[in-house]
Amino acid sequence: MAKNQLHSFQNELSEWYNDVILKAELADYAPVKGCMVIRPYGYAIWEGIQNFMNTLIKEHGVQNAYFPLFIPMHFLNKEKEHVEGFAPELAIVTHGGGEKLPEELAVRPTSETIMYEMYSKWTKSWRDLPVLINQWCNVVRWEKRTYMFLRTSEFLWQEGHCAHLTHQESLDIVLWAMNLYQQTYNQLLGLYGIAGYKSNTEKFAGAGKSITFEMLMPNGKSLQSCTSHDLGQNFSKSFNWTVQDQNGQNVYPWQNSWGLSTRSIGGLIMAHGDDNGLKLPPNIAPIQVVIVPIPGHQDALELAKKIKDTLSLFRVELDLDDTQTAGFKFNKWELKGVPLRIEIGSRDVASNSVVIYRRDTGEKMTVAVAEVATNVQSLLANIQANLFENHKKFTQDHTLKIDNYDQFKQAMDTTRGFLSAHWCEDPECEAAIKTETKATTRCLPLDAKEESGTCVRCGKPSTHRWLFGLSY
Amino acid sequence: MAKNQLHSFQNELSEWYNDVILKAELADYAPVKGCMVIRPYGYAIWEGIQNFMNTLIKEHGVQNAYFPLFIPMHFLNKEKEHVEGFAPELAIVTHGGGEKLPEELAVRPTSETIMYEMYSKWTKSWRDLPVLINQWCNVVRWEKRTYMFLRTSEFLWQEGHCAHLTHQESLDIVLWAMNLYQQTYNQLLGLYGIAGYKSNTEKFAGAGKSITFEMLMPNGKSLQSCTSHDLGQNFSKSFNWTVQDQNGQNVYPWQNSWGLSTRSIGGLIMAHGDDNGLKLPPNIAPIQVVIVPIPGHQDALELAKKIKDTLSLFRVELDLDDTQTAGFKFNKWELKGVPLRIEIGSRDVASNSVVIYRRDTGEKMTVAVAEVATNVQSLLANIQANLFENHKKFTQDHTLKIDNYDQFKQAMDTTRGFLSAHWCEDPECEAAIKTETKATTRCLPLDAKEESGTCVRCGKPSTHRWLFGLSY
Repeated sequence: MAKNQLHSFQNELSEWYNDVILKAELADYAPVKGCMVIRPYGYAIWEGIQNFMNTLIKEHGVQNAYFPLFIPMHFLNKEKEHVEGFAPELAIVTHGGGEKLPEELAVRPTSETIMYEMYSKWTKSWRDLPVLINQWCNVVRWEKRTYMFLRTSEFLWQEGHCAHLTHQESLDIVLWAMNLYQQTYNQLLGLYGIAGYKSNTEKFAGAGKSITFEMLMPNGKSLQSCTSHDLGQNFSKSFNWTVQDQNGQNVYPWQNSWGLSTRSIGGLIMAHGDDNGLKLPPNIAPIQVVIVPIPGHQDALELAKKIKDTLSLFRVELDLDDTQTAGFKFNKWELKGVPLRIEIGSRDVASNSVVIYRRDTGEKMTVAVAEVATNVQSLLANIQANLFENHKKFTQDHTLKIDNYDQFKQAMDTTRGFLSAHWCEDPECEAAIKTETKATTRCLPLDAKEESGTCVRCGKPSTHRWLFGLSY
Repeated sequence: MAKNQLHSFQNELSEWYNDVILKAELADYAPVKGCMVIRPYGYAIWEGIQNFMNTLIKEHGVQNAYFPLFIPMHFLNKEKEHVEGFAPELAIVTHGGGEKLPEELAVRPTSETIMYEMYSKWTKSWRDLPVLINQWCNVVRWEKRTYMFLRTSEFLWQEGHCAHLTHQESLDIVLWAMNLYQQTYNQLLGLYGIAGYKSNTEKFAGAGKSITFEMLMPNGKSLQSCTSHDLGQNFSKSFNWTVQDQNGQNVYPWQNSWGLSTRSIGGLIMAHGDDNGLKLPPNIAPIQVVIVPIPGHQDALELAKKIKDTLSLFRVELDLDDTQTAGFKFNKWELKGVPLRIEIGSRDVASNSVVIYRRDTGEKMTVAVAEVATNVQSLLANIQANLFENHKKFTQDHTLKIDNYDQFKQAMDTTRGFLSAHWCEDPECEAAIKTETKATTRCLPLDAKEESGTCVRCGKPSTHRWLFGLSY
């Protein structure tokens, strides 16, 4: 146990993860099976993600809206693959207002069906396209076992659903959305990952193609961190939805859907941590700087307030609690992952300087009072870049080119990580690899180069290397 | 029918209301009974309300969080009045993940019970108080008949839930929250209303006292527009939740809850409209200024773009659609309630001026190009103030002092509005008034002066005038 009474980050990641979520007050188990409560410190992270993404979403002309929580079962049944994929995870409302309902309602697991029903009502001609809509909401997919943020029966997400006259326009949005997610992960959350196509087995129920963003976690498992789907015309055909094109012909619109959920917070927590707790990248940290005047040093208080005033551009907490020791406070704010801590004692007041502590590297430095604001600004930028580079290096160091099935199996037993290997794209071969090694196809990277080779397991010809790994 | 094919605002308000919501694309009926779809133009209004309120909520130290959608039935059953109030309106989940659930789950109608269960876990001593939490979410209260925004089975709202060591601190938040709502209605939505105490019959199920904000609609009906409840210690006692006070004694915390919902958008639509559609106050209007270059006037385009560049401080739409006539566009933007329209034709280009049209008064004025930005700024402020003053004057003009039951009955038959009358505060008398006149007690205004009188119906002594009216 480390000083914050956490399990070991290196050796007991699952236990560390639960510890840090509870102790840093990011979330708590709910008294409803499979559900969680997102506490203010965790919710502030979600609000940060919402703000960042909303700016980019709206700049691109996509508008937010809100569709009903309940979906009549006959809607879900319209797209065969879709209902087969989601039926086992549904929560079902059977009674409302004291009466048995004439038709059971599903609590939305995703909103394709109810949205497209409305879109078909709103669009008559090509002039009514594209429809560019996103919604922020809760969805429910029944889970037996809770893994906070990563797997809960109810979670929060955004789901973008656009409809277009041409397949190409729809594909442009599929890629734009994945780019939006990459920006969010890279620039806001300081996380690196690989965008690529899912295999046919792993794609979304009802999609033509699914693009995923896969992030490597410290235990070598891969986290599917968001997805963007090319739905082709599957749903417009199921809903018998046509519009008149420029030539007066009835055509089926092309659709896409794309989602990022509170699962992203799980990746954020896990990828950056250490034995002392969270390390939040400054761009997303609810508190970027905590100022701790040493308890009992009365002269430190005034300087602390003065320093806070010079930091109005940043999210700053001034810790004036006089019931805790300095050491207790330092541990608490490290646990909560605050990027910078400013310590002020009587000696600092005398020398007109403060001590700044960096959460990511553990460095301490003495800074003159007049230079605090400039230093904070450059340090925060530096920490943001450093955390991203660390995660990128970790991912690249744990991505192995494998050309031989024995090596593949050995790597899955030991180092794990991403295995880059040729694969024949046959679902039976994919299933056998999973049974034999636990590895699943993570994705065919968007930037994968054509390269002739042979399937790592069956030896059939292959044109590209896929990424394999253990799934979260 | 007026030019936008709406029913008459004066004479057919209900039909006008539905027309304008559908035609201005604020919302649509959902294919799920009792539910609605909030379309982007309507949802942008909700986002405006969220942004305005979040700033004030956070400034006061209240933090956003998220609690589960599902509430186990035994939680709701803990507070007797609470469950009796909500049981008839619940949606019930009986199955999850393909199996019958061991305990039925209610879809939250409000979150007191699940929140207080968690609060009791998080707080052990007076040092852990106050708990200051708010959440933005969807709730479900089953309705047979949909009235868009005003009464739907699912709606969006915020619910603040705070807990305190003393009753006084809790009461301070009850009043602060009502003040927050008044600011939102007055300053953002341009709406006037009366804050006051609900009668014991009309208060929230489980509350000690409820404060409401009542707004008068153009048909003389009163809209309960939000509420703030003093819950006393009812829920902490039901949940057996105590904390240690400064003296080491176990005490029950004092709670309050306060909520404002998408119903507020219904009031906004109805209170400001006219036969041509919506009139949105500039502070909440998703589009504050629309620029319409007259179709076919090629030279107007360049000037329109130039004008748009000078208005970067405002929310501006440049209407470049070349498939519609100028007249059609003018009607469309009036229907949507855009506060200012700037019209630009070849003649305007020649005189280096534009025409500005005010939606609230219908005035048109010619403004030199160099003065457009300054004019827009002052006109928007003027429209905001004017719409509020209009609604305030309407409300005051329709608030009648009544001291005689015959007059009371006559007023309810004819002018409606708020009736200010003495009442004995006896629930039986209240019920009789409702049966005999359809009027319900709306509230005892917070600023009501003590005044000795006799109950308008039964003649028993009374100390204050209450507001009566027809309920929405």
